[in-house]
Amino acid sequence: MSTPTKFVLDESKMPRHWYNIAADLPTPPAPPLHPGTLQPVGPDDLAPLFPMELILQEVSSEREVPIPEPVREVFRLWRPSPLYRAHRLEKALGTPAKIYYKYEGVSPAGSHKPNTAVPQAWYNAQAGIRKLTTETGAGQWGSSLAFAGALFGLDVTVYQVRISYDQKPYRRALMETYGARCLPSPSDTTNSGRAVLAKDPNHPGSLGLAISEAVEIAATHDDTKYALGSVLNHVLMHQTIIGQEAMLQFEMAGDDPDVIIGCTGGGSNFAGITFPFIGQQLRGKGKTKQRRIVAVEPAACPSLTRGKFAYDFGDTSHLTPLVKMHTLGSTFTPPGFHAGGLRYHGMAPLVSHLAELDLIEATAYQQTECFAAGVLFARAEGIVPAPEANHAVKGAIVEALRCKAEGKSQVILFNLSGHGHFDMASYMAYSAGKLTDQAYDERELAMALAGLPSVPA
Amino acid sequence: MSTPTKFVLDESKMPRHWYNIAADLPTPPAPPLHPGTLQPVGPDDLAPLFPMELILQEVSSEREVPIPEPVREVFRLWRPSPLYRAHRLEKALGTPAKIYYKYEGVSPAGSHKPNTAVPQAWYNAQAGIRKLTTETGAGQWGSSLAFAGALFGLDVTVYQVRISYDQKPYRRALMETYGARCLPSPSDTTNSGRAVLAKDPNHPGSLGLAISEAVEIAATHDDTKYALGSVLNHVLMHQTIIGQEAMLQFEMAGDDPDVIIGCTGGGSNFAGITFPFIGQQLRGKGKTKQRRIVAVEPAACPSLTRGKFAYDFGDTSHLTPLVKMHTLGSTFTPPGFHAGGLRYHGMAPLVSHLAELDLIEATAYQQTECFAAGVLFARAEGIVPAPEANHAVKGAIVEALRCKAEGKSQVILFNLSGHGHFDMASYMAYSAGKLTDQAYDERELAMALAGLPSVPA
Repeated sequence: MSTPTKFVLDESKMPRHWYNIAADLPTPPAPPLHPGTLQPVGPDDLAPLFPMELILQEVSSEREVPIPEPVREVFRLWRPSPLYRAHRLEKALGTPAKIYYKYEGVSPAGSHKPNTAVPQAWYNAQAGIRKLTTETGAGQWGSSLAFAGALFGLDVTVYQVRISYDQKPYRRALMETYGARCLPSPSDTTNSGRAVLAKDPNHPGSLGLAISEAVEIAATHDDTKYALGSVLNHVLMHQTIIGQEAMLQFEMAGDDPDVIIGCTGGGSNFAGITFPFIGQQLRGKGKTKQRRIVAVEPAACPSLTRGKFAYDFGDTSHLTPLVKMHTLGSTFTPPGFHAGGLRYHGMAPLVSHLAELDLIEATAYQQTECFAAGVLFARAEGIVPAPEANHAVKGAIVEALRCKAEGKSQVILFNLSGHGHFDMASYMAYSAGKLTDQAYDERELAMALAGLPSVPA
Repeated sequence: MSTPTKFVLDESKMPRHWYNIAADLPTPPAPPLHPGTLQPVGPDDLAPLFPMELILQEVSSEREVPIPEPVREVFRLWRPSPLYRAHRLEKALGTPAKIYYKYEGVSPAGSHKPNTAVPQAWYNAQAGIRKLTTETGAGQWGSSLAFAGALFGLDVTVYQVRISYDQKPYRRALMETYGARCLPSPSDTTNSGRAVLAKDPNHPGSLGLAISEAVEIAATHDDTKYALGSVLNHVLMHQTIIGQEAMLQFEMAGDDPDVIIGCTGGGSNFAGITFPFIGQQLRGKGKTKQRRIVAVEPAACPSLTRGKFAYDFGDTSHLTPLVKMHTLGSTFTPPGFHAGGLRYHGMAPLVSHLAELDLIEATAYQQTECFAAGVLFARAEGIVPAPEANHAVKGAIVEALRCKAEGKSQVILFNLSGHGHFDMASYMAYSAGKLTDQAYDERELAMALAGLPSVPA
């Protein structure tokens, strides 16, 4: 009997705690600062936006944070998610490497995003909140929060980047099926949106602007809080259930990864699969297996490989605290490539900090080579990856071909963060040869970086 | 600890045989007839269209037919599929009934169709066939055969009903991503297609016509065979892995269904979930639990509830053998409702035979009430069902509410045959109040039934 194709954990083995990497870091990351005072922000500064339980998670240094039982109960709808051995892809590549992937597309919304949407909705509901606002680009995050809101009786309003709202109505239809309200951003419901519309009524929107709108509504309405789908510490921590499950599944497989790969936009799915493994290494102090951890980002929005490690705003209208991260500048507008979930100017502070500590590597690929990787994967393994996940697939194939060239049978793990069933228009464009690589404007990047807020060291 | 939400079988327990209900029937179904001679068709008559292994399965009376190991190896990509207890839906309905659903949307193509696409592709590849043709409506079947063809190196050509080809390009994009060729039907590549186009260059196509085109290509090309996604005995048998897994999962749950529900178009997903249970009952001769088996069909294409049990053609151009089934007449054109997978004039002969034997019940619902059921389900359980599967959801909710009214805690099982991620346009139409119930033309039905071929009893 050959090695099984998939490793499925019993529900009873689903993790009961999130893993908080803050407990194991050799040095702490720089604190977020209030943009006016340049002093570290405290829980009270964040209270208008988030319920206190999530704020406490944001600043926690406890290694293990319990997952509430009602949240675990919802997780059982799709978790534990499967770990796959990609036998057919290995054969197609002719590589001696063993390739594994953790598949998060089994969630109701089709990606890893519900892993944090569900606890965020639950903590808000527990705090008596009735309404949530958020932003979304292509719609993975918005549909995940809409799903979570439906389960806990919360009204969810999603500001969707207008160009996606107009061009990709099906994710919006998913949000509306779950009962959420979806508005195009810029909208006339906020000062941030109206200011932009006044200058340009046809503005296509951006993730940074949609964040501004969602934050503004939450900050000015007592019954409304805000939810973010990536970047923040607590969001990344919620995703660590992915890596913790993967560790248990590797025990089932009797294997151990040498290289772990995730795609990075804001950083949450990458953190989810890698942080538990990085933490094990940090605690082992050289006694555990030394693994390579590889972040793969789009060449058209390369915050880790081309950005500056500096304090910056998370949004366009500068309503958020300043956070220290790899950033392309909050005024930088990434070109319109298809992996909408990776089109963000900054990188999660925790992921940025790990990059500064040389605990992770980063690499960037163009979208056409990522789609080619995705099509190869689909024809071998059957699953059509989301355009974002194609970056991780590409990274894994590059490593597998390196193993082939070097004659090494290394173990490669990557996170297949979502399926591409809502992204077939981009696959059509790719098949028709109409999908081209996108270059950002070097001058615009230089200007955006020159315009970073000045924060004394 | 409450009852688990999902019951996941280990790969090692995945069934090794398909279940062939022909072995347990009290009387055999009527044989298919050659339309010219009106004599039963033999294996040789079918040889131009199918490889011999599949023809032998079509006429087999063995109770257990082994699933080849290379087919089981592919199945491991998504099988065993999960059985869910719908705790949240039960709560939303306030019913004392226990509702379970078997979820086939976890397959790479998002429905149960790969359960037969993979073995059909494999048997063809084993027989040295290099090319397959088939038809598809909305695209579930076409994308499943495209997926299976990619795995075994077969060239797949799919004739897609033109109105779907034009209006729903994303399933086509999925077929092309898997490497298949997709043509709109009617096309100019066949006599059947050209004859229709000559009369009406803008003909919207139909499933019966697309079958004619695909069959014609296979019948006239030595290197090409034909694959059908439902209706035939061997296709239904391939789907019985669903019900066999469900039986093992009910053992895990310590429960046993009182009512089993599936939606019916051609009949394959319904057969898949119900035949193993019906067989158990037939073999038990009254000593096992007596279950109700309910087929749910669209009111706009009601072959079981309004059709005639008679010999008819499977296609529009009358290239197929005559099969005895519940039919609306091969010239009947169902109105354009959204569950494209259920828009077929006939019902599988085996399912029709069971209905005649009073071993199953049939009921029909309009599409708006089915979409309402689907939205309720999505908000409770997270999964957005395909429009076809909404019919089964509706059937299950009706039974659950009956249990509530009667104060009975019965066990309900239904087959959630696929997810609706490619069908969000229909959910948008439903949300916007633009989706209406469709009535077929009573006069057209009467004419189609009057035109059934005359076969002496």
